Order: sequence, then C-alpha cells, then structure tokens
Amino acid sequence: MEETRFSRRMQGVKGNAIRELLSVSQQPGMISFAGGLPSSETFDVEVIAEIAKEVVLADGKKILQYGSTEGYEPLREELIKYLNSQQDIKATEDNLLVISGAQQGIDLAAKAMLDPGDVVLVESPSYLAALQIFKTYEAELHVVSSDKNGIIVNELEKLIKEKKPKIVYSVPTFQNPSSVTIPLERRKKICKLLEKYDVLLIEDNPYGELRYSGEDVPHIFSLDKSNQTLYLGSFSKIISPGLRVGYAVGPVNLINKMRIGKQGTDVQTSTIAQAIVCEYFKRDLLNPHIEDVKKQYKEKRDYFLLKMEEHFPDKARWNYPEGGLFVWVVLPEEYDTQDLFKVAISEKVAFVPGASFFVNEQKNCLRLNFSNASFEQMDQGIERLGKALCEMLDC
Amino acid sequence: MEETRFSRRMQGVKGNAIRELLSVSQQPGMISFAGGLPSSETFDVEVIAEIAKEVVLADGKKILQYGSTEGYEPLREELIKYLNSQQDIKATEDNLLVISGAQQGIDLAAKAMLDPGDVVLVESPSYLAALQIFKTYEAELHVVSSDKNGIIVNELEKLIKEKKPKIVYSVPTFQNPSSVTIPLERRKKICKLLEKYDVLLIEDNPYGELRYSGEDVPHIFSLDKSNQTLYLGSFSKIISPGLRVGYAVGPVNLINKMRIGKQGTDVQTSTIAQAIVCEYFKRDLLNPHIEDVKKQYKEKRDYFLLKMEEHFPDKARWNYPEGGLFVWVVLPEEYDTQDLFKVAISEKVAFVPGASFFVNEQKNCLRLNFSNASFEQMDQGIERLGKALCEMLDC
Repeated sequence: MEETRFSRRMQGVKGNAIRELLSVSQQPGMISFAGGLPSSETFDVEVIAEIAKEVVLADGKKILQYGSTEGYEPLREELIKYLNSQQDIKATEDNLLVISGAQQGIDLAAKAMLDPGDVVLVESPSYLAALQIFKTYEAELHVVSSDKNGIIVNELEKLIKEKKPKIVYSVPTFQNPSSVTIPLERRKKICKLLEKYDVLLIEDNPYGELRYSGEDVPHIFSLDKSNQTLYLGSFSKIISPGLRVGYAVGPVNLINKMRIGKQGTDVQTSTIAQAIVCEYFKRDLLNPHIEDVKKQYKEKRDYFLLKMEEHFPDKARWNYPEGGLFVWVVLPEEYDTQDLFKVAISEKVAFVPGASFFVNEQKNCLRLNFSNASFEQMDQGIERLGKALCEMLDC
Repeated sequence: MEETRFSRRMQGVKGNAIRELLSVSQQPGMISFAGGLPSSETFDVEVIAEIAKEVVLADGKKILQYGSTEGYEPLREELIKYLNSQQDIKATEDNLLVISGAQQGIDLAAKAMLDPGDVVLVESPSYLAALQIFKTYEAELHVVSSDKNGIIVNELEKLIKEKKPKIVYSVPTFQNPSSVTIPLERRKKICKLLEKYDVLLIEDNPYGELRYSGEDVPHIFSLDKSNQTLYLGSFSKIISPGLRVGYAVGPVNLINKMRIGKQGTDVQTSTIAQAIVCEYFKRDLLNPHIEDVKKQYKEKRDYFLLKMEEHFPDKARWNYPEGGLFVWVVLPEEYDTQDLFKVAISEKVAFVPGASFFVNEQKNCLRLNFSNASFEQMDQGIERLGKALCEMLDC
C-alpha cells in the first residue's frame, strides 16, 4: 500500500527509537545501559509461577471469561486500599481504571482529550514514548524548560497563558530520562496553576516506589485541590513489565471517557495478569518485594556512580539519582552523543543518545540505565564508555 | 471537568451499549441471551492453571520482562505454522502482529489509516464495537446493504465509487450479529473490487473456527491477490477471552504502522497470556479443544433453535446459524425490540435489541446468544421470551 493511504498521524511517526535501538543493544557481547528494563534478577519467578496456577484454579471461570473494562474486582479493591493507606492517592470505585501498563493511560487520556492542533506541554527532556503518543494525536508539543528541580514554574505559567494547553505531561518523580524529582514547594505552585487556568496534568509515576535515598515527596495528585490531575501508576518496575498491569486515578468524567476508549481497544486488561498482581497485595508480598528490589537497585546505583567517577572525564556532568533507573549525563554543548554512540557500539557498549528525549533534539546528553546490568558488566561497560568519552572530549 | 474540554471524538461516543446492558443482564435470576460470551464451561481451567505455572517456571525471566511489540517469539512461530497449515492464511515473520484481542486490531488499523472525515463502509447490521471504534476516529460510516449471503456486491461497488472509502469492514464468517457467512463466489467478487479500486478490507474473524454444520469457505485474505486484506483472528472464543490474545495478518507496511501504534498504547500484549496460548499449540491441545467446544455449542445451537420453534410466534423470522454464537431474529418492520426488551427484563430474560448494530438504528431485530446459557436456562428463557413476543405481536 502506498504511504499516502495511511492517516496523517502515522505518516509522521517513526518507531520508538529506543525500542529500535534495543535490537542493536542485544547483539552478542554488547553491554547495554540502554533500555529502561528492570533487572530480571528481581522477578519472583517461582512465586509468580505458583500464584498463576493458584489464581486460575481458585477463580478460573471468572479469570478466563470476559471481565469488566474497569478491571478485575478483587484487584480494584486491593488497589483502593493500597493507594489510600500507603500512597497519598484517594482512589475510589469511580475514579480508578485498571490499564494495560501506565503507558496505556497516556494514550487513553490523549484519546479522551486531544483534537488535532491541541497543545500539550512537556518537560525538557521528556519521556520519549509520551512524546510519540501525543504526536499520534496530532497535538502541538511545547516544551517547558527544566532545571535540576524539574519544571520551571514561571516558564510553565507563561506557556499556559500563551499556548492554552489541554494537557501538561510530567514524570515528577525520578523522571525518565533525567532522574529529577520536583520538590514539594514547586509541586504546590504547579497545582495553583492547574487551578488558576483549568489545565489537566498527567502525573506519570512508574518509578515512585523506587527511592533509594532522600525523603518521599507528596504526589501532585494529592496536592491538587482542583481535581485536575490524572495519576498513572504501574507494576512494571516493582513486579514485572511483561504482565502489563497499571492503573489510572483521576477526575471521574475523564476516567469514564478513558474507560470508553479502553472498551474500543483491548476491552479489558488480561485478567490473569491482574489476578497475579492482586495476589501480591493479598499475600502481603508487595511491600517486602519492593524493599528487596530497592536494596538491589541501590547497590547497583551506588556502584554505577562509583565507576562513573572513576572512568568518566571531568567535562561530563551527571546528577545523583535518588531513585528510579537512570543516570543522565550532560556533555559540553558542542558535542553530539550520536557520534559517541557509534564509537560506543563498536566498543560493545550501548546507551541512549539524549536527542530522542527532546522535542528540539538537543544533542549533548545521554541516558544510562543502571538497573539491568550486572556488576561485572558495569566494570567493563563503564570503563569502555569512559574511554570513548575521553577520546571524544579530548582529555 | 466540563464536557467541552474533551476531544471531539469522545464527545459523541457513548459506552458500548452491550457492555452497559450486561450489568442489567447480571441481575440475580436473570437469564441472559445478551452478551457474546463463550460458555465458561468450555474453559480448561485445570489445564490452563498447570500451563500457567509451567511456562513461568520454564521461561519466567523472559515472560516477566519487557518483550517485543511484535509478540512472544515462540507464539509467533506456532501461529505462522498454524495459519499456513490449517488456515489458508499466509502468515510470515513480517506480516504478523500479536495483539491484545482481535478488537485491538480494528483500533490499530483505524489509527493507521483514518483521518477525520475518511469513509468506512460497514455491513448492515455490523459489529457494534467496530462502529464505535471507527466513530472515535471521526470516520464517516456508510452502510452496505446485506442479504442472507452478506454484503451485496453491486451495492458495495456503487458505494466504493461514490464514497471512496479507505476501509471496508466485514465479519464475513458467522457474522456478529447476523450469523451470515458470505459464500465463495461473492468473496471472489469482493476481492476483485478491492483490486480494482485499491481499498483495504478488514476481515474480522473471531468465530471462523466454530463451524457446526456446512462447509468451510476460504478466507477473503487468501482469495485477495492484491494484498489489501487485513485478517484479524482471536483466541477469545476458542481458548479464553480473559487472556486477551489475538493476531493480525496483513500488508507489511500496514502491519508495521499498527506495530508502531501498539508501541504507543500497551507496548506489547501480556506475555504470560501469550505463553499460555503458545502451549495450546505446542502440546497439540488446540485442535482437540476446538472440537470439544464445537460439540458443546452445536448441541446448544440445536436445542436453542428447537425451543425457538416451539415458543416463538410465526411472525418472528430467524436464520439458521452454521457457526458462531448468535441467532438473529427479525420482526415485522413496525415493531421496536427496545419495547420488547423492557418487557423481557421484567420477565427476567435479556437479549440485545438490534438497533445498536445498525448505523441507521433499524429497530425490528434482536440478537440472541446461544453459547452461554445452560439447557435449563434455554427452556425457561426462550419460553419467557416467546411469551413476551406473542404478546407484542398479538398472536
């Protein structure tokens, strides 16, 4: 079929650069700090195998039948308890939707909110797949500058006034790719803007449970008294991404539109996957498991940063991630990490060049994932990458 | 949030009437011939429980990790074998996408093909959820009249010339709701039109494996030499709908666009669900299971039709379904089955009024599902419905 027969939205969209890049990074011998994969060492393979069998035996006729679009009832009940007691998220029967991974929440919200030409404000840098989703709804993306504390509030207000966005999209906690967390005071100011200008904010929070140091900050959702925050949570980083289970909590009429949108795509999230997550709550497995994952990732983060100190040249700068999966490295402006990528690949080490995360394709950054490599791979991979960096930066 | 803040596409769309109606039909004591549910008696609960455990133990680190958007590799291999050897579908590595139920295929194809105002031709009556999906892409729907052999070809050609559709959507085998199967000669003529006018046809085939009498007819996909058919298959009716696993086979560049669209929504179909389906192939369970399901449904169909003969008035007409899950009943034109529905509900028997399946809301039809009720429920439910019909039709 000729390209012209496709929709406008799909003519402009390329595949997710990172997923395309993963195929390169899976070459034999390659050490990959690309991807955003949790470590498969953290998966409770035997526990999940046993749970999978038991849930089907116990409730198979329901689990294997069509279920409600809202989600598997026992999981919804557990989620409401968890979000109200352990997170500061007031989830109710009416404002909660189980989704097939948090990313589906971005898609369903965009479907519910956006007409072609509508404006979405995104962080700079921002989560790649979100940018891609908003583009498929032919949204006009505008960038709010960020500093080391995330979105700059004055800039946000200026852009809201000027561009009248329908959506502000943010990953306010351990952002992907920058690992930045927006502090409390700034969150409060953002909430005031939502109220003042009637704008929806999507608080995408796949990493929030993974804090290794510092103090928890309240969610924007709980600070927002004007009820204009859509909160997206996920089990991908704390149980398993292959299950594809996440949840959305937000304004009731938005959740209702998203539910209708979900009816029209996958009808409901795979029930066996929902039932497995449900058992993590019922058997009190979730909290101990999260503690275990955090312990593993904290060690990895610390070792990763140590090795970076050792091998990376002074001209490269990076942040100290208090949680999440990434270290964000900034080079002097004149360098292009796409060039570095080519050298790195030939030396058998992969990362994600930063340009993909910027609407304006800023070129001097790179994202490193520390959750998925072994300590041995860190030893070798960071040394190789350090060498490639030193050559490039001429030091 | 005010209604005006939502997208145009979502302002017009109501929830799927059938799913809304299911809540009524789940009242205690209600006998439901509504819904399109397979019988939960057909689910291999113990087998699936055991398989679920074994696949996670055997390949857990892969199954629980992010996987490729194309689908779980072992399932893709089995699907390619199955489709080429047992169905007349030439699936290859490049033209196959695993999806989260066949319905996701309609959504992804619409996303890939449709701009607002683009024309889609649909059958009359047609699958409700498909109509809803096309509406969310702001397509202009036009109806091709059908007779007892499905789409009327002359009418189709006339509408193609006049309306220049991007998509023709059809359920050519055991259609939902009419149970009609388009015969071979008509399929060939439809293929000629696809070639002559460069139009994509979506062949949605969730019921194709469920034939209880008569002879198989080749798929439109295999008859279409111009490679403009998107074939959608599903395991919902032959293994379990709660798993949410289906597949799309079609033009390579369309499948590629759909894959990119899928990246932006659920990233991939839940891998444990894919792995369970995969084992049905590997352990040679699928064919014997389909035979068993067909045996059960054939008995149900025959009993259902027998009871209808016994209790329904002469003025009601219905077809003889050679497969699938439904009987489609047509009343004289002056009657509205929405009125019948109210009476039936008060008598504790539910069905789907036909208007939902028509773009023009034709009112004198009803859809009955025979796969999900017990024989005892058929006895009572059809008697009750017959009585309500007799009252309405005054006989």
